[in-house]
Amino acid sequence: MYVGIEAGGTKFVCAAGTGPDDLVDVTTFPTTTPDETLGRARAFVADHTDGLRGIGVASFGPVELRRASGAYGSITSTPKAGWTDIDVVGPLRAVADVPIGFDTDVNGAALGEARWGAASDVESCVYVTVGTGIGGGGMVSGQLLHGLLHPEMGHLHVTRHPDDEFAGRCPFHGDCLEGMAAGPAIEERWGRPGQDLTGDQLSQAVAMEAEYLAQLAAAMTYILSPERLVFGGGVLHLEGLVDSLRARLVGRLNGYLAVPEITDHAERYVVLPALGDHAGVLGAIALADRAASHGA
Amino acid sequence: MYVGIEAGGTKFVCAAGTGPDDLVDVTTFPTTTPDETLGRARAFVADHTDGLRGIGVASFGPVELRRASGAYGSITSTPKAGWTDIDVVGPLRAVADVPIGFDTDVNGAALGEARWGAASDVESCVYVTVGTGIGGGGMVSGQLLHGLLHPEMGHLHVTRHPDDEFAGRCPFHGDCLEGMAAGPAIEERWGRPGQDLTGDQLSQAVAMEAEYLAQLAAAMTYILSPERLVFGGGVLHLEGLVDSLRARLVGRLNGYLAVPEITDHAERYVVLPALGDHAGVLGAIALADRAASHGA
Repeated sequence: MYVGIEAGGTKFVCAAGTGPDDLVDVTTFPTTTPDETLGRARAFVADHTDGLRGIGVASFGPVELRRASGAYGSITSTPKAGWTDIDVVGPLRAVADVPIGFDTDVNGAALGEARWGAASDVESCVYVTVGTGIGGGGMVSGQLLHGLLHPEMGHLHVTRHPDDEFAGRCPFHGDCLEGMAAGPAIEERWGRPGQDLTGDQLSQAVAMEAEYLAQLAAAMTYILSPERLVFGGGVLHLEGLVDSLRARLVGRLNGYLAVPEITDHAERYVVLPALGDHAGVLGAIALADRAASHGA
Repeated sequence: MYVGIEAGGTKFVCAAGTGPDDLVDVTTFPTTTPDETLGRARAFVADHTDGLRGIGVASFGPVELRRASGAYGSITSTPKAGWTDIDVVGPLRAVADVPIGFDTDVNGAALGEARWGAASDVESCVYVTVGTGIGGGGMVSGQLLHGLLHPEMGHLHVTRHPDDEFAGRCPFHGDCLEGMAAGPAIEERWGRPGQDLTGDQLSQAVAMEAEYLAQLAAAMTYILSPERLVFGGGVLHLEGLVDSLRARLVGRLNGYLAVPEITDHAERYVVLPALGDHAGVLGAIALADRAASHGA
């Protein structure tokens, strides 16, 4: 039995189980102060120590993932008030002496989709979420992507869509991908949230969004060469977006990568997540399983 | 003892040894027909079967790296005449029944630099070569980057430098990175090869080149988060280029990634290769060693 903790900036989701078919005690609470929130997570673990083999935490970030660092297991320079340099793993370790897997929320999601979801038949994949922000994680030959830090794909530089006059809203880069294509950018550009757009506005919004996301998809293809790109998050519910994204990606590659798995079957290369509502906490369960298996 | 074969589009380099300090019988011959060229490579192996523990091939591409594929070990859709769908590994296996490591030239170079060179103190790195073309390989937690294909970083879409009126020369994408920043693009833009530029032309050429390469460096940082970026190839000899590339990368990140290893020590993050003239064949030796250790 594992405990998975999806540590989000808005809410925490805890669950016990070993996978999608036996998830029990799914418990959600808001992210308030670190003391209160991590206290509730600790209490959840304490209630599930019987037969516990591992804990997994899929966290908002940035996080310290380098085991050699004294700050391993912490959230580091987050803009979220009160959460800078907060140790997440340490307090959990005090409750249960089991292996603890710790990674970014998006690496957790990539691992979960690779284990049970939309990438379960391949060895390398990328998971991108497009919502309030844009983030990505991934797996290469079974290894989750991290190095100096962890991927921050949302800040990729993009070339503006020619009809797009929106200035962009990233405080660091203005018109980087997140500044142009995350949910709040769509809302600010069109004066209403994406899900409320209709008619011509919807068509234009989808065309622009697809153009920006296709730039990320192409960059990931060139730099990482994954076997599958999983695009999730609320913005992907925009009608027609994923089809348009596939078409624009193939258009951008323009015949260079003569890989039929992309050019002829983009619908199998760029896919939506398969794990649904519990994807985040299942990613955490997958991290727990991995930690227990590797003795991490 | 290993045999390493650097299979380049212009020349093959073969050597025996276990690393930079005991490389022997370094042998170079031009890449002509597959029969002749692979025949010479086979003969080199046949001369070194005493105590041979593995063979490594670092090849020009594209290559098939998926072991499940019937074409594993082949060069696939290369523009090089006569070399399409040529099996490289098979003929070598017929000469010596030892593990054979096979990868792209740039993944080989990344592994060699990680083993003995500019990235020997880290677990993840990227190796980019900027010469006749632009290519890149990399390593994540000890795994070389491949998935559906292998990285093709040279074709990353870039935003044009505002003063640059050169159309770009990539037959697929026009003004992608390789179309704008490989050696032939520099020569065509300025009317002479990079190494012959002086004065204002040199300054302008370096500024543009640094701007394009910084876009790749930033994209790799956001998507892969490696611990080190190694930039090699003839174009990197342009005076002042690597310093300018570091400065422009830090400028592009614009404070977003508050990682002192990048922002305060860009000279340790973006580095030149350390293995010198034998980097390619040492990469192949590293692939051999890896194959022998993993039983590949």
